[in-house]
Amino acid sequence: MTTTTTTPTLVNGVNIDQLIGTINAIKEKPALARFNFRADTKWVNGGHCRTTIQSLYGAGQEDTSRARAFVLEGDEPPVLLGENHGPNAVEAVLHGLASCLSVGFIYNAAAQGIRVEALDFRLEGDIDLHGFLGLSDKVRPGYEGIRLSYRVKSDAPREKIEEPCEYVQRTSPVLDIIRNPVPVAITLEN
Amino acid sequence: MTTTTTTPTLVNGVNIDQLIGTINAIKEKPALARFNFRADTKWVNGGHCRTTIQSLYGAGQEDTSRARAFVLEGDEPPVLLGENHGPNAVEAVLHGLASCLSVGFIYNAAAQGIRVEALDFRLEGDIDLHGFLGLSDKVRPGYEGIRLSYRVKSDAPREKIEEPCEYVQRTSPVLDIIRNPVPVAITLEN
Repeated sequence: MTTTTTTPTLVNGVNIDQLIGTINAIKEKPALARFNFRADTKWVNGGHCRTTIQSLYGAGQEDTSRARAFVLEGDEPPVLLGENHGPNAVEAVLHGLASCLSVGFIYNAAAQGIRVEALDFRLEGDIDLHGFLGLSDKVRPGYEGIRLSYRVKSDAPREKIEEPCEYVQRTSPVLDIIRNPVPVAITLEN
Repeated sequence: MTTTTTTPTLVNGVNIDQLIGTINAIKEKPALARFNFRADTKWVNGGHCRTTIQSLYGAGQEDTSRARAFVLEGDEPPVLLGENHGPNAVEAVLHGLASCLSVGFIYNAAAQGIRVEALDFRLEGDIDLHGFLGLSDKVRPGYEGIRLSYRVKSDAPREKIEEPCEYVQRTSPVLDIIRNPVPVAITLEN
């Protein structure tokens, strides 16, 4: 019996061989790029709800890699009539945005051979609650604007670091979702 | 010694007196409606990052109600080169959306005296990864569309239930963030 062991090429914890393999597979069969993500949310009480996330479809099949569902709590602070069982909805969006930029930056840096030592993001967003509370239809309910600053620690020179920065701004799914309109179809079932 | 105890009027777990008090306070002093939400995210390894959410500003002051920060993990499934340490960024957005509609629906129903027994949401969104992987600039990186269906269990008649449904579609912060453009300012620090 012969066993062959190959050591994966890891940059920033990203398996570069798999990344290149994925890109090549999609170039050959574009339908592999189609993904469907899902979430189920149940109201608990007051401002508190609970979301479970497990299944997804992608790369041509149902993904069964998650043995258990992820559980996310959502709630409001007392000033917004909640009990702090979790971050609120607009805070969850800030997490989604940073999480997306983190993945995009790290994967692209890895593909370019840029080794990242540390990467962190600070985000904030402003909301005028006149919209949410139905007190004005001239005030938008959502963020008026989001400010995000981030720091990268790496031996690579600044101009090399700027490449993945530019890249993620063109390719980040959540940045696109926030900056540009996404159609949302809402159905109330019986 | 005289103690006065008042029982709050709770509908759906929402303190109606506080809700009315908040609305009246904002009508009197509109600046109380200004909120600032924040998040800090650190990359861990590969697709994995960790967000902490604690402080916020609102109702005219820094909010100190959270003794501890909420911690959210973000990661990708193995098919997207991650290790499933948490839901991914676009799944977190689905959670944010449902969480927002849940709060908005429940609060508005409570204000109208509609008692809700159960409320749950099912969400899904489609993404073509050609955008995220930088394989096409004709494919948007984010969701092409999101479908959300929800069920409400309540003694109230269907037409009464439809009122908070309409209301949240006009006033939900996250629905607005997803459906309409939000400016995002990104700064790479030194």
